[in-house]
Amino acid sequence: MTLILSNEEIDQILTMEMALDCVEACQLAVEADEAINSPRVDTLAPTKFGETDGVYGLKSMSGLWPAAGVAALRINSDVLIWPEVAGNIRRDRLASADGRWNGLMLLFSMETGAPIMICPDGYISRMRVGAANGLGARYLAREDSEVMALLGTGWQAGGQLMSHCAVRPIKEVRVFSPNPENREKFCRELANRVDAKLVPVESAEEAVSGADIVAAGTNSMSPVHQAEWLKPGVHLSAVKVQEVDEAFLDSADMAFLFSKNPATTRPQLYKLPSVETPEGTDGWWFKRDEPFWERLGELTQLLTGATQGRQNNEQTTVFVNNVGQGLQFAAVAHKAFQEASARGIGHELPTEWFTQDVHP
Amino acid sequence: MTLILSNEEIDQILTMEMALDCVEACQLAVEADEAINSPRVDTLAPTKFGETDGVYGLKSMSGLWPAAGVAALRINSDVLIWPEVAGNIRRDRLASADGRWNGLMLLFSMETGAPIMICPDGYISRMRVGAANGLGARYLAREDSEVMALLGTGWQAGGQLMSHCAVRPIKEVRVFSPNPENREKFCRELANRVDAKLVPVESAEEAVSGADIVAAGTNSMSPVHQAEWLKPGVHLSAVKVQEVDEAFLDSADMAFLFSKNPATTRPQLYKLPSVETPEGTDGWWFKRDEPFWERLGELTQLLTGATQGRQNNEQTTVFVNNVGQGLQFAAVAHKAFQEASARGIGHELPTEWFTQDVHP
Repeated sequence: MTLILSNEEIDQILTMEMALDCVEACQLAVEADEAINSPRVDTLAPTKFGETDGVYGLKSMSGLWPAAGVAALRINSDVLIWPEVAGNIRRDRLASADGRWNGLMLLFSMETGAPIMICPDGYISRMRVGAANGLGARYLAREDSEVMALLGTGWQAGGQLMSHCAVRPIKEVRVFSPNPENREKFCRELANRVDAKLVPVESAEEAVSGADIVAAGTNSMSPVHQAEWLKPGVHLSAVKVQEVDEAFLDSADMAFLFSKNPATTRPQLYKLPSVETPEGTDGWWFKRDEPFWERLGELTQLLTGATQGRQNNEQTTVFVNNVGQGLQFAAVAHKAFQEASARGIGHELPTEWFTQDVHP
Repeated sequence: MTLILSNEEIDQILTMEMALDCVEACQLAVEADEAINSPRVDTLAPTKFGETDGVYGLKSMSGLWPAAGVAALRINSDVLIWPEVAGNIRRDRLASADGRWNGLMLLFSMETGAPIMICPDGYISRMRVGAANGLGARYLAREDSEVMALLGTGWQAGGQLMSHCAVRPIKEVRVFSPNPENREKFCRELANRVDAKLVPVESAEEAVSGADIVAAGTNSMSPVHQAEWLKPGVHLSAVKVQEVDEAFLDSADMAFLFSKNPATTRPQLYKLPSVETPEGTDGWWFKRDEPFWERLGELTQLLTGATQGRQNNEQTTVFVNNVGQGLQFAAVAHKAFQEASARGIGHELPTEWFTQDVHP
């Protein structure tokens, strides 16, 4: 049988602690040559959704984890746009599929090749992105961090909230997004997810000033904070480098990426001049020189202890979760599969619906 | 709605003529920078199916065709073995999923991102592999080819039979496989697919001697014919280079591959020393030098007329369909989608079963 899980069912069984453990374990496995992150493939071309000019993108990423006996493939098929909101360019995905988004996760058994689980990617992806940032914070944020600023109130912001609260004793989270309704709604809806108090605030500066941890989980393609707002001892956590103020990254005492050499292929571009948009919003860091890159560490160095994390309460630190990898999906989805199977959650469909009687 | 097609339904609507047109059109589109073949990703690791030692492989390939407004992803998740049969090493896939095989095709709309069709990959794959070899034969086989040898009676052999009979006036096909039952069964089952007479024969030499076209569609990892069996004017068509006698390829007047620079990534190997098997059956051609490679042409050169095909009835020619690419699936699946939609074939499922209400 093949287990079909909904986002809501995954939400019910997958805790941030599980996601933190899974993402840590699979990164250590890659480091020990005990798992594979296969190259991610992005294919982009101009498209038109109704009257809206956008970019169609097909993305797939896969990974294989022998210790768990599984491989996973995650698939996104999206119409991307880059609107200007409150003075910033955002990267957004249209709800072009009848008001919904596409995103699928297939989990395969390495023993039989059969798909053992199929589910949407939304909840799993939010948890594994959040977990990677949470692991960074575990090594880089002050242990006594109590005040957190959360910039952004979209899907990824929820993961950032949960993961940072899971690794540090956060008491208050100051939540900012340019739209007042969005920040009120976010605080209302996510209040029961964490013990910390969620407080909507009216500006990014108000959120960030005095915060021990600043977490950005936005769609912004330009910095969402200014270096001078940040105090000594702060940890800045971002889901993409474009969110980070270049001056702050340059001045930070320690700066880490998820990976400096991620398993990706060169994006396949059809009539598009740059990786992400017709305007070329690859991010400022692609223009930086060798010394800039050499200064950056990677998450795995922290996990293995090869590089020590924060050493005192005055250091400023940065973690940028610059890339998602297929193995994270294999690890987190496998955990969800185990939990759901043990607890009888989800629906089963005959595996033969997804297999065939010919030898392709 | 998302169209679900079975292999049988695809078989009912997709003709070899359609597949030939699709594969030709998409290759010309790639050549004109009007379509994208994205890099194929192979991930392999040792596994055990019951008592059988094998190699688990996850393979994905994708392509995007703006003219048709679609992108496609093809997925295989298999347990591979390399048994010795009749003195030859074969590459085989176990029916490890409850006696069945895994292989899925997803077709996406570039306008909405939604999956518009989902189907198994078996029939589409057989048709597009056959079509590529058929296109090679259209330019390289003698126009008056009437006698064909078919080596192999497995899944791919059926595609080779149909495609060569579609492009040349074949009257008789001499079918060989080491197992007498298999060749009898093949001739019985595929008799109504082509006008030519299918004749099972007792040896590869008997099949090949005097044939105008020799088509190999086997799982063999070693040559299935000998150079000296072949007569002047013959066209040899193979689905992989391992099937071809090196001496014949060296002596042939013209030799073409599907592609010398296919869109692939380096296979990701977990505890495996070589691309295909623990024993290293990459094929002899990987050891050949630059002049060998320079001599080889590519299918697209023939399709565009950049290189002339056969010039007289005495030349010996070879076409090796050395790689499968994602764009072929986009093109052939899109044709199947159009035909099925027009004729009301297949089943529709709500697209929201494959989408989500969160922005991943």
